[in-house]
Amino acid sequence: MARMMAPVATELGITLRVLVESEQASAALAAHETVVGVPTDPDAVARLLSGVPPAVLTWEHEHIPAAVFDACQRAGVPALPEAAALISAQDKIVMRENMDRWGLPSPAWAPVTSVEDVADFLAAHDGIGVLKTARGGYDGKGVRVIRDAAQAREWLDMARENGPRLLIEQHVAFDRELAALVARRPSGQVRAWPVVQSVQVDGMCSEVIAPAPDVPATVATQAQQIARTIATQTEVVGVLAVEMFLVGGQLMVNELAMRPHNSGHWTMDGAVTGQFEQHLRAVLDLPLGSTEPTAPWSVMANVLGSARPALTDALAEIDDSDVRVHLYGKEVRPGRKLGHVTVSGNDVDDLRARAAHAAAIVRGGGGR
Amino acid sequence: MARMMAPVATELGITLRVLVESEQASAALAAHETVVGVPTDPDAVARLLSGVPPAVLTWEHEHIPAAVFDACQRAGVPALPEAAALISAQDKIVMRENMDRWGLPSPAWAPVTSVEDVADFLAAHDGIGVLKTARGGYDGKGVRVIRDAAQAREWLDMARENGPRLLIEQHVAFDRELAALVARRPSGQVRAWPVVQSVQVDGMCSEVIAPAPDVPATVATQAQQIARTIATQTEVVGVLAVEMFLVGGQLMVNELAMRPHNSGHWTMDGAVTGQFEQHLRAVLDLPLGSTEPTAPWSVMANVLGSARPALTDALAEIDDSDVRVHLYGKEVRPGRKLGHVTVSGNDVDDLRARAAHAAAIVRGGGGR
Repeated sequence: MARMMAPVATELGITLRVLVESEQASAALAAHETVVGVPTDPDAVARLLSGVPPAVLTWEHEHIPAAVFDACQRAGVPALPEAAALISAQDKIVMRENMDRWGLPSPAWAPVTSVEDVADFLAAHDGIGVLKTARGGYDGKGVRVIRDAAQAREWLDMARENGPRLLIEQHVAFDRELAALVARRPSGQVRAWPVVQSVQVDGMCSEVIAPAPDVPATVATQAQQIARTIATQTEVVGVLAVEMFLVGGQLMVNELAMRPHNSGHWTMDGAVTGQFEQHLRAVLDLPLGSTEPTAPWSVMANVLGSARPALTDALAEIDDSDVRVHLYGKEVRPGRKLGHVTVSGNDVDDLRARAAHAAAIVRGGGGR
Repeated sequence: MARMMAPVATELGITLRVLVESEQASAALAAHETVVGVPTDPDAVARLLSGVPPAVLTWEHEHIPAAVFDACQRAGVPALPEAAALISAQDKIVMRENMDRWGLPSPAWAPVTSVEDVADFLAAHDGIGVLKTARGGYDGKGVRVIRDAAQAREWLDMARENGPRLLIEQHVAFDRELAALVARRPSGQVRAWPVVQSVQVDGMCSEVIAPAPDVPATVATQAQQIARTIATQTEVVGVLAVEMFLVGGQLMVNELAMRPHNSGHWTMDGAVTGQFEQHLRAVLDLPLGSTEPTAPWSVMANVLGSARPALTDALAEIDDSDVRVHLYGKEVRPGRKLGHVTVSGNDVDDLRARAAHAAAIVRGGGGR
């Protein structure tokens, strides 16, 4: 994520100093300045804030220790989004409590600390539920569909041994998954991009279609309104992604991310202002850019890792001059997101086929 | 120029190693790797080519010493565009000879080495001509309108003292200036963006309108064809910009640039593939991207230096969320290009006013 922020920072004449795990990290090469270390290391954070003090510190993920916020406060550097906002994206129990408080639609849910809690919930919800760790999950990790309370025992034991708290949610047989992406700046200005559909495979997003096809305008507007409400209530600064289920024409909030998000990658090529630039504008309290799409449809397909993409061969083989290719320069791990492709145009079915074809070639899986 | 290539290199996962005059150069912060030095320093060029050998070496301007090409050949690194192509953009006498050879329309012209040569040309062309140094001119430098052969004496003396050769050209009372931008890859594939109009103030481009308004399709096609012919005949690899005069419905070639060019900055925001990405694709012999515009009209306005642009204030004051701002991070010098703005949409007159307004604010000149 930090790597994709560097190009727009360069274009706006903004210097990007990035905390990287190593000089070999994918963000390190692209960043303007780097500090090697991790957010849990106070010395690394001090180095990040030293020298010319940054105008603002922001995050590419939500797992930011409280000590980082304290260090920023001592240094007089704004840390955005703030801890009070970020908690709604860090902790799924806090998030669900907030959705209920703000009257936003959620699946039925309950915090659970015992097998009995889980059994009670399953009994009340057709014998099936989705067990989640309140913190630390992503891309299908920390999420487990269960049909028997005993299946929760291992995670419950971990939770008691200082592991993350657990919650269980209604298993929603959704028709589709939508995502609403907005950005908010400290002044309160919020801008929303068109609502998209995301297609998941094995708990990971494989494809995003912008705008979401065949969604009534009232539903799309409601999805944007939900995201605006969350942005305003949490006082998030930066990009907020709200993943939602669409079931029987009704929306339910699934998850939040308070940073540029995979469901918004299409904006880099398919909207006037991309999400990474918008995030920079927001945290610097600059006027937000237009979120208008530049084509009737855009389709983004993720490139999931198996082989290291060979750019030269891949671009030659794709042979589709409309396809925009983004590679992240990461080391390959199975299932890891190594890049994405976007293609924009007039015929959404055609675009979906072309995006899938291009992504398959880039990941070396053929696609012919 | 190198600075604007870094963002697209990052997005494509390409590592960009740049020869910079100093670590404070505007390109240095954005580049992935830097070597400090100048192209005339063999040690610096050797350092640029050492370590992991680059897949290709390319240029952000045409003033490349022959020794650099020799060093690349010894190192087995392709140097593109090649010297044989670049000469047509380096030397205006060679360029004019080539235009004549390829049957492409030029103003009347002649090489001149004496006051008598100049006087003869003026006598044959209404007593007015444009004296040019064959090499080294840019942005109105090395170009002088003269009405008396004596005005050429100083430059003629310089030419005799090992200065650049001189030529004189017919003074064209053109109606408008157009530019045709194409890219060519080694395989021979050429792609052309829509032909644009450039508006010059004091010999420097202040505004580019894409596509050129009120130009008959036949003329636009002819302009693209001229650029394609030059690309093919010179065997240029990368982006080629051909600046032309339009006079009485007729085109004449004015100047060439063999690199991404100011007249193509609009493509970064207003076309599927921007000129910097296309240049990278071309020199790496990758399939060229689509040159289709993403909006009916785009207008680019240059930000010329007077004060250092203050991004925060400027973006707040522009208050036009469609405006795309690009700053180059350069030190301020009067008249220097410090950045540009682009705005795309449906009403070209409205876009021109908004681009000019935004550029005026960024350069601190008011514009209100």
